[in-house]
Amino acid sequence: MECTFGLYDLIARQAALFPHREALRRNGDVFDYARLERLARSLAAGLAAAGVKTSDRVAVLSHSREEILALLVAASALGAVVVPLNVRLTAEELAYIVADCSPALICADGDHGETARSLARGLSSSFEDLHGKGDAPALAGGDASRPCLLLYTAAVSGRPRGCLLSQANLLACGFQLRDILEITGGDALVATLPLFHIGGLGAAVAALAAGARTIVMERFDPAAVVRAVADDGGTLFMTFPPMLQAVLDAQKGAGADLPSLRAVAGVDAPPTVEAFLAQNPRARFFTLYGQTEVMPVSGGDWRSRPGSVGTWAPWARVALLDDDDRPVAPGETGEICVRSPSVFLGYLGLPEETRRCGRHGWHHTGDLGRLDEEGYLYWAGRKPEKELIKTGGENVYPAEVEKVILEHPAVAEACVFGVPDERWGEAVWAACVLREGRGAGEEEIIAFVADRIARYKRPRGVTFVREIPRRPDGTPDRRKLADTIPNS
Amino acid sequence: MECTFGLYDLIARQAALFPHREALRRNGDVFDYARLERLARSLAAGLAAAGVKTSDRVAVLSHSREEILALLVAASALGAVVVPLNVRLTAEELAYIVADCSPALICADGDHGETARSLARGLSSSFEDLHGKGDAPALAGGDASRPCLLLYTAAVSGRPRGCLLSQANLLACGFQLRDILEITGGDALVATLPLFHIGGLGAAVAALAAGARTIVMERFDPAAVVRAVADDGGTLFMTFPPMLQAVLDAQKGAGADLPSLRAVAGVDAPPTVEAFLAQNPRARFFTLYGQTEVMPVSGGDWRSRPGSVGTWAPWARVALLDDDDRPVAPGETGEICVRSPSVFLGYLGLPEETRRCGRHGWHHTGDLGRLDEEGYLYWAGRKPEKELIKTGGENVYPAEVEKVILEHPAVAEACVFGVPDERWGEAVWAACVLREGRGAGEEEIIAFVADRIARYKRPRGVTFVREIPRRPDGTPDRRKLADTIPNS
Repeated sequence: MECTFGLYDLIARQAALFPHREALRRNGDVFDYARLERLARSLAAGLAAAGVKTSDRVAVLSHSREEILALLVAASALGAVVVPLNVRLTAEELAYIVADCSPALICADGDHGETARSLARGLSSSFEDLHGKGDAPALAGGDASRPCLLLYTAAVSGRPRGCLLSQANLLACGFQLRDILEITGGDALVATLPLFHIGGLGAAVAALAAGARTIVMERFDPAAVVRAVADDGGTLFMTFPPMLQAVLDAQKGAGADLPSLRAVAGVDAPPTVEAFLAQNPRARFFTLYGQTEVMPVSGGDWRSRPGSVGTWAPWARVALLDDDDRPVAPGETGEICVRSPSVFLGYLGLPEETRRCGRHGWHHTGDLGRLDEEGYLYWAGRKPEKELIKTGGENVYPAEVEKVILEHPAVAEACVFGVPDERWGEAVWAACVLREGRGAGEEEIIAFVADRIARYKRPRGVTFVREIPRRPDGTPDRRKLADTIPNS
Repeated sequence: MECTFGLYDLIARQAALFPHREALRRNGDVFDYARLERLARSLAAGLAAAGVKTSDRVAVLSHSREEILALLVAASALGAVVVPLNVRLTAEELAYIVADCSPALICADGDHGETARSLARGLSSSFEDLHGKGDAPALAGGDASRPCLLLYTAAVSGRPRGCLLSQANLLACGFQLRDILEITGGDALVATLPLFHIGGLGAAVAALAAGARTIVMERFDPAAVVRAVADDGGTLFMTFPPMLQAVLDAQKGAGADLPSLRAVAGVDAPPTVEAFLAQNPRARFFTLYGQTEVMPVSGGDWRSRPGSVGTWAPWARVALLDDDDRPVAPGETGEICVRSPSVFLGYLGLPEETRRCGRHGWHHTGDLGRLDEEGYLYWAGRKPEKELIKTGGENVYPAEVEKVILEHPAVAEACVFGVPDERWGEAVWAACVLREGRGAGEEEIIAFVADRIARYKRPRGVTFVREIPRRPDGTPDRRKLADTIPNS
């Protein structure tokens, strides 16, 4: 597998075929493909000079900048693994991840240098430190089957789990997104999603694979998205609730016509998608479904089957399985299981979880779905034991929030669940049973959580109950609780 | 890597999404995708019933029939390896391959059952024998990184070498050919190339990947190609000299206009390509370059750079290296070296050859080339030590023919080389030094070779010389000899 094609090979290919074509820009600073390839080589030389070796982990703590991508390309050519950290996590959450993956180095941008230093004592480095470490030789892109990326995702057990992805996984993701979204060399991706999540990284790899250009944004800002489309010719961006509505509001506010906008891709509620299509009649909305462990699973033009999450990705096969891993009857709901070259390598240090997740040759997503007769997939919630909440494009696992709430001295029991939310897609909500003789208020619980874990994980509301309703097997009945929340 | 996407997964995906779309037809017998999937499952059940296990080799001796494809799909789901044998080889050549790869089973079509039985004693089976072995369960497509295909290619040492390819290799080949040739679900491939070579197999996988249909031909017949386009709506076929000229002649003979013909892809001499484009002004010619070890390397619309072999395949990186594996200066000629997910796994039982071929992370093709400033590749002959002759789409290694000629009692020395040939692209030619006091004629030598190895390997002409010219390092100077052949 030594002569395979890695991320560096992709960049080097484009730099050889069209060196002067724009690859990335941020704040007016333009990287053509030749400059991007030099940036990756310079970072590779810096990593090597810092002692980074095959299989080492390199964490990165940065806003969504081109350097995350370039570092991923550079590290993968050395056989090292990049761990992009979510800058919205608290110091404690970051410390847990750093302890879990033991990075050989933490690279940070200017805003996060202090956090990196406090996390890593002696192992931290700025992007600037990595540059200028002598001549960076031409590279081969490493073994594509080896891990190159470790993305932490929210965890059932209350702790994040590290998903290991290979270069081949990421390239299969990028090429499939390129196909589904019909990305060509003429496209300009406005990089709305963070580069420390699979959606943002996958879209960027898709743009690179197509030889397109990417307009990098350090953070999501709806007015900046409108300007990137209107002024820089952006043709495409990715979205999770509530991004699209915010962009539509900003577009209206600016009175902007966006003739270059060809498509928006991702997830949103039907009324928002319809509003987008009405406001931008020349554009299309591509629905997408996937997760860190496998991206994409399905996708396609929203108009071809509104409400579905599209048809199977070009190199994906979908099966709906019951609890005994038998296919459900046609039209019935089952767990969405997938075979695809983008299925991840496994959870770091969790062989049993990894094995269970991939049992019988099928990746088990933990999501429920239905298929229509032509293979369009309809998302139908999450398996009870994997009650992930998706809010504003971030994953929140109830168990993690429950664990924090239970540290509050007044709380005897807690159950956290998602409720539909017009703005965020879903919102985190908590039901609490108080200890006898103790009292606590909604705002107090919310602030208690916000002080301890990333702010996006705090409940939007708290309901106090006498007991947590349970299903016959004794597990909390989160759906029943969700139904009690008014206006949800 | 257990939840990856294999060949069976591709067929099952298409069968789930469009079961009633035509996948293959041969002589009016139509296989929609659902029937093709059932055929693969039935063959898998038959192989399992015959005792075929993971890593076993299954040889197949057949004209180019859909069963070769279905057997490949079935075997790969079981983790077994299919060895498609070239039906043009002699019994001795086939026996060598069978001894080299020790198949657990040899499957043959009706025309080759006797040969298969004489080769394998007790291990042979007909396609019919494999069917009807009880219910074939739904399958997962196996581990895509494992070998699934063993293709024998002509060998430097005078013996064919087995190239091991994984499912991922074949799928990367198919998806890249799909991209280069712009194949969509509306296409109909006329399968002109044999399904026991990488070109024919790769094109068939490309058509399956696009959800297109393939018109299977047991053997190449120019009039049948014209009929498949004119009557069955064929849109695309692959070509090696002298196929295209023969089709053009047949088209003229039939007075056929071929409005559905969208493209022809492969290799031919500029005058033939120009004649094709003049005769079919709506069609395009796509040039392609690759080899069994990596397909495709490059390709593209012939008109964008006539005479080149196109630009780099979408997931391929090309470097031109000198004898010390350093990049040659821009514009200079060097060995064409490749990184790509379709680079093969290695030569069966030849670890040293495999290592040499993939040294420093680059697959060494043995071909020489030049790149222009925009990355278009120009084929510039073969490295002297790898003097492959390509004649009529078949590979002939001089050493193999030389070995046979040297068995002739009158011949003291022999040197075999390729000469340009209008009809066959290249023709095999031999220079012989006779033993003192012995005589032999041109026709006698040609017949001597034709009796012993596949007929396409026999020289078209023999030149008798007093001595073989040699290069400074003592190796025969084949180019100097080729220059002495008149009208070549």
